Amino acid sequence: MNATLVPNNSLVTATPEEGRQLAIKMARLVIKATQPDEAVRGRLREVYANDAAALIQIGHVVALEFATIAAANGYWRS
Amino acid sequence: MNATLVPNNSLVTATPEEGRQLAIKMARLVIKATQPDEAVRGRLREVYANDAAALIQIGHVVALEFATIAAANGYWRS
Amino acid sequence: MNATLVPNNSLVTATPEEGRQLAIKMARLVIKATQPDEAVRGRLREVYANDAAALIQIGHVVALEFATIAAANGYWRS
Amino acid sequence: MNATLVPNNSLVTATPEEGRQLAIKMARLVIKATQPDEAVRGRLREVYANDAAALIQIGHVVALEFATIAAANGYWRS
Amino acid sequence: MNATLVPNNSLVTATPEEGRQLAIKMARLVIKATQPDEAVRGRLREVYANDAAALIQIGHVVALEFATIAAANGYWRS
Amino acid sequence: MNATLVPNNSLVTATPEEGRQLAIKMARLVIKATQPDEAVRGRLREVYANDAAALIQIGHVVALEFATIAAANGYWRS
Repeated sequence: MNATLVPNNSLVTATPEEGRQLAIKMARLVIKATQPDEAVRGRLREVYANDAAALIQIGHVVALEFATIAAANGYWRS
Repeated sequence: MNATLVPNNSLVTATPEEGRQLAIKMARLVIKATQPDEAVRGRLREVYANDAAALIQIGHVVALEFATIAAANGYWRS
Repeated sequence: MNATLVPNNSLVTATPEEGRQLAIKMARLVIKATQPDEAVRGRLREVYANDAAALIQIGHVVALEFATIAAANGYWRS
Repeated sequence: MNATLVPNNSLVTATPEEGRQLAIKMARLVIKATQPDEAVRGRLREVYANDAAALIQIGHVVALEFATIAAANGYWRS
Repeated sequence: MNATLVPNNSLVTATPEEGRQLAIKMARLVIKATQPDEAVRGRLREVYANDAAALIQIGHVVALEFATIAAANGYWRS
Repeated sequence: MNATLVPNNSLVTATPEEGRQLAIKMARLVIKATQPDEAVRGRLREVYANDAAALIQIGHVVALEFATIAAANGYWRS
């Protein structure tokens, strides 16, 4: 299976909302590439979705991915 | 329910104060998207609101979201 | 009570020292917004002020807030 | 053995997907330089691939490497 | 006592080495402002100076302070 | 002994590979400045070189140092 790390192979999105969705997807795809076993990821999802510290760290990673995507899109200013 | 990740689908705000409010909201909406169950989030809120390390990490994420929003707004300089 | 997240609603400061003070205040105000109960914050302060890891993490958040403030002020170069 | 830290000694890639692959490789090569023993790294891989917090932290590092690579490539805009 | 957060109230340094020294000092001065009791800081120093994770985190904060100082100095390029 | 925090007192390197080596060295030199006792550092090395979380955090710090070095070198583009 050819895992794609960047959907559509582009950082350009039409809106900030779509940029945010891309940030979430890109963060997930790195984890998928590191742990390809879906059953294991499912078990770990149960862990982090119920752990405050882990959820905050996920928010941290998404914020960082989004910073790059936002810069790539000129912050959707005009 | 159509969860919105970026309120008003824009990073532009009138003032730094509003930019900061947006940063807090965007950080929360990622957590909501990751853990949609409101009852679970309520329990976790009790945890992180009473844990020094977790509160500092929340501050970290907000600071990172704000960095992007501030850049998007040209730091509200003029 | 109308919590202010950015004192004076501006990232502009006269000097780096004042920028650093603003970074510390902004970091604290996010924690205050997340945990508004002053008694709880007082207890947590006892924890983090005596914990090496927590103090380092506070330094991390302040450094990140300061990066944004410094950029907003053109690094106080001239 | 002459460990290479940056494959092809360049941050330039043709696409975001390849930039992301480079980010993952560069993150791994630092760990390899710090812990050159392949057997130890194999054992640790078992640990982090089954630990939610560790996987999220790996995602964090990749996001940071990618931010640099994306800037180096002008975000593959044109 | 009037704690100074930025020595000389300036981010400008003559060289990268001095910029790095400033980064270390600025990181320490935030911790001093948060925990002003010298005896407590002395005890905590014993902790973090002998803890691998804490030392790495200190390195992290210094790297972030340095990023800002380096940008302020145009990376000492010319 | 006059510990040097930035080898050659410059962020300029000929190639990304050398920039990456500089990032690793600069990260190590901060730890050396914080814990000058070589015997202690040797013991801690045993700890972090066999701990997945610590190795990932080292990768994180190196990525951040490298971001600054890469910017200082205009990403070695031309």
